[in-house]
Amino acid sequence: MTATYAELEERFAELHDLSVAQSLAGWDQEVMMPPGGADSRAHTLAALAGVVHAKATAPGLGKLVDALHRRAAGLRPHQRRGVELARRAVLKATRIPESLAKELALAESRGLETWRAARKAKDWKRFAPALRHMVDLKREVARRSAAAAGRGRGGSLYDQLLDDYEPGATVATLDPLFERLRAFTTPLVEELVASGVKVSLAPLVGRFDVERQRDFAREIVTAMGIDLARGRLDLSTHPFCSGLSPGDVRMTGRYSPSDLRGGLFGAIHEAGHGLYEQGLDPSRARSPLGGAVSMAIHESQSRLWENLVARSRPFWRWALPRLRRRYPWMISVNVDAMWRAANAVRPSFIRVEADELTYNLHIILRYEIERDLIEGRQQVTDLPERWNSGLADLLGLRPKDDAEGVLQDIHWAMGLFGYFPTYTLGNLYAAQFMATARRRIRGLDARLAKGEFVVLRDWLRDNIHRHDQLYTAEQLVRRVTGEPLSTDAFERHIETKVKAIYGV
Amino acid sequence: MTATYAELEERFAELHDLSVAQSLAGWDQEVMMPPGGADSRAHTLAALAGVVHAKATAPGLGKLVDALHRRAAGLRPHQRRGVELARRAVLKATRIPESLAKELALAESRGLETWRAARKAKDWKRFAPALRHMVDLKREVARRSAAAAGRGRGGSLYDQLLDDYEPGATVATLDPLFERLRAFTTPLVEELVASGVKVSLAPLVGRFDVERQRDFAREIVTAMGIDLARGRLDLSTHPFCSGLSPGDVRMTGRYSPSDLRGGLFGAIHEAGHGLYEQGLDPSRARSPLGGAVSMAIHESQSRLWENLVARSRPFWRWALPRLRRRYPWMISVNVDAMWRAANAVRPSFIRVEADELTYNLHIILRYEIERDLIEGRQQVTDLPERWNSGLADLLGLRPKDDAEGVLQDIHWAMGLFGYFPTYTLGNLYAAQFMATARRRIRGLDARLAKGEFVVLRDWLRDNIHRHDQLYTAEQLVRRVTGEPLSTDAFERHIETKVKAIYGV
Repeated sequence: MTATYAELEERFAELHDLSVAQSLAGWDQEVMMPPGGADSRAHTLAALAGVVHAKATAPGLGKLVDALHRRAAGLRPHQRRGVELARRAVLKATRIPESLAKELALAESRGLETWRAARKAKDWKRFAPALRHMVDLKREVARRSAAAAGRGRGGSLYDQLLDDYEPGATVATLDPLFERLRAFTTPLVEELVASGVKVSLAPLVGRFDVERQRDFAREIVTAMGIDLARGRLDLSTHPFCSGLSPGDVRMTGRYSPSDLRGGLFGAIHEAGHGLYEQGLDPSRARSPLGGAVSMAIHESQSRLWENLVARSRPFWRWALPRLRRRYPWMISVNVDAMWRAANAVRPSFIRVEADELTYNLHIILRYEIERDLIEGRQQVTDLPERWNSGLADLLGLRPKDDAEGVLQDIHWAMGLFGYFPTYTLGNLYAAQFMATARRRIRGLDARLAKGEFVVLRDWLRDNIHRHDQLYTAEQLVRRVTGEPLSTDAFERHIETKVKAIYGV
Repeated sequence: MTATYAELEERFAELHDLSVAQSLAGWDQEVMMPPGGADSRAHTLAALAGVVHAKATAPGLGKLVDALHRRAAGLRPHQRRGVELARRAVLKATRIPESLAKELALAESRGLETWRAARKAKDWKRFAPALRHMVDLKREVARRSAAAAGRGRGGSLYDQLLDDYEPGATVATLDPLFERLRAFTTPLVEELVASGVKVSLAPLVGRFDVERQRDFAREIVTAMGIDLARGRLDLSTHPFCSGLSPGDVRMTGRYSPSDLRGGLFGAIHEAGHGLYEQGLDPSRARSPLGGAVSMAIHESQSRLWENLVARSRPFWRWALPRLRRRYPWMISVNVDAMWRAANAVRPSFIRVEADELTYNLHIILRYEIERDLIEGRQQVTDLPERWNSGLADLLGLRPKDDAEGVLQDIHWAMGLFGYFPTYTLGNLYAAQFMATARRRIRGLDARLAKGEFVVLRDWLRDNIHRHDQLYTAEQLVRRVTGEPLSTDAFERHIETKVKAIYGV
């Protein structure tokens, strides 16, 4: 019997359906699960990982993919791309045995629980063994992956993990990009600090009833075009967005009663991810083409809304009256003060609370550390020291404890090595996309100031979301902006903004 | 290599871990999922059902079970019971092909959605085709099951489905039991109605802020001994309890702002199930012995707390002051009035709102209908007529529409044929267990009146919960109460109570 593309679609539909169960179990673990469920959940995630792994590595699937690949010339273009993506997925799965896939899933769940307890207790030593185990497992994955790809000799071992989140990205391309960004950022931060200008954070800190913040967040994300009949907005310690399917997109937030920033910008950020997930083509969701292009493209969508929209003057023209309705004392705050506060540049400890400019330095710190961990040039034991001296170099700060240092992020606990760089890549893509949107959508700022966010959502949906994985990130950015990715648009955007605010 | 019990345990651990994913996806569908997720969720539940079916019917497992069964004499008693339960599970799975298992899962999800819409619209015709499809599928299951068990000729086809919820139960044993119960109930209800005594419901109906009801429910279930670090209490249209594992037990409730009964007794009912789930032995959860004995034993735990405890005078001595704290206007209500209101007997339309006495008539109605549906003696088309005339016979009432008639329950939409009778069996077991507890626990009523519910929880845990499936329901009731199941304890309990209230 001839291998057909329809067969491939059927197999991928099942893989997708099972991956939804994995996503749901992961979401629930973060948002709903009582503490007593942790152990059972770890087993369940491991069992699901085992099942998905077995299906993705089934000899029948491999043969089917190879057969379709051999006669790719006879396929339609979207089918050729589907086969290419399927080959990639099969290769990713077959590079590790089922036992390792299950062990990883177990280590992720347990690492998460251990990290939670360690961060709470500010106790690095409690977390270190779990992290060491995780690093060992991920290095094993990287080694097997390099061997499978026949790249045993060239490139960094870390490239293999990077590729899981950002297909095609390598240390060889990231190192110079990040070097350029650092060379741009550091003197600019110094210039702003040296200016002596103190941008007041007053409009964003104070007493903010949490229920009203949540209500405000709901109003904003709805105005952005999020459909809550096809999604949820919940609470979790670490905000995230999980798209189970285009019809079931789950965003979470965390709200502080004394600071508007985390809750507000966090909700908008996750809604940016959410719009991408809701904008994917439902008819493709269960096919090899379904899903987001890459983590950086995903992050570009969240950053675009968080930084390019919600940290702009037009946004605050629309939002401030709505905020005042919830907090009448804000009558004394004007749009300009809000805009300035939202863009204050201050070297700080916590990545997720960092301003738009220094944020990338937090990523560069993590990128260099995890690259070295995977390459075997950095030991887990010495991480706090490496972290603290790195932060001192980049931002001139020293954490008072590991909870505001090396223990702050969830990523390594969950084995997400290679994920951090996509945040900064996302910032760069976001600025480049937004510069194009501004050229293409007539009177965009005026429309944003009226809350007509949907015009931007629709442009993004049309140009990015609805294509799923039809294009690679590289193809997409050229297709949408006419140029390859660079730091230019980001540099122009941030420099103009902060120089105006700081008057330098 | 010799087949070992440890191998069997390993395989069942994986099956359990995957069943947790199924339970979670089911819970989420009812409690959290946005409407847009329905289609994807149906696919995911079907994919999980397919995977579990494939693992449960894997030839290796069947051979392992048979090998262990052949040398059962060399196993320890709990292992022998484990092998027996495993054989049963394998037989249940292998009787249907994977395609039918998936089709059933799909029909359940879709049936649920269709039922929801039909009930809302009070539109029987909208639901009928889905139900007809479901009845066809379940009859197919029953036929294959009878053939596999070699029972092609004797017994009712419906026995095969009954056995899925209540191992060993048959039409031949249920028919006379229910006949006796009906013969006891009908004249008693008539006597109460004829007495002309009107028991006032006033203390239970009025205006009750829903948040305060939820808070009250939390106080009660915590006093009962529910550990909310190992469970959750949420909202859903149809209250239920889902034990993902002994450490993750999820109960739901539904609260009306004008009636205390549904929310209050519902929460206590589900907490009774929850205590059973939390009381199972965690070290056995992933083994063939893990889990509840049967649905009727499960229901006995919820009914015991709902009816034998929460509809008793001692309970209200403890609860009423706590209720008054939330609703100060209740200062004028006394314990006796509350107790009477909680036990008012009134023929009514909705099963879940029925009193303790007439409740069993609602079950008898459903039992007879579903038995006939599966035996092929009742057509789906004629169900509303059958329902309405049956209700008229049993309770002298005629529903004004199908939403308060044949469309009221979720069970048939989800394919749960054979489940309803376990509710009434649960009532009987509950009364029999409670009569024994009352003899064994010194001063039980006085302790309940002080809110020392944990003494009862611990007795139940010790005698029932912690044994998982070590005993059959029949063995368990003899072991705990010294007697086989009968209607005696229930009849004594309810007759004494309602005759005291109605003064007949």
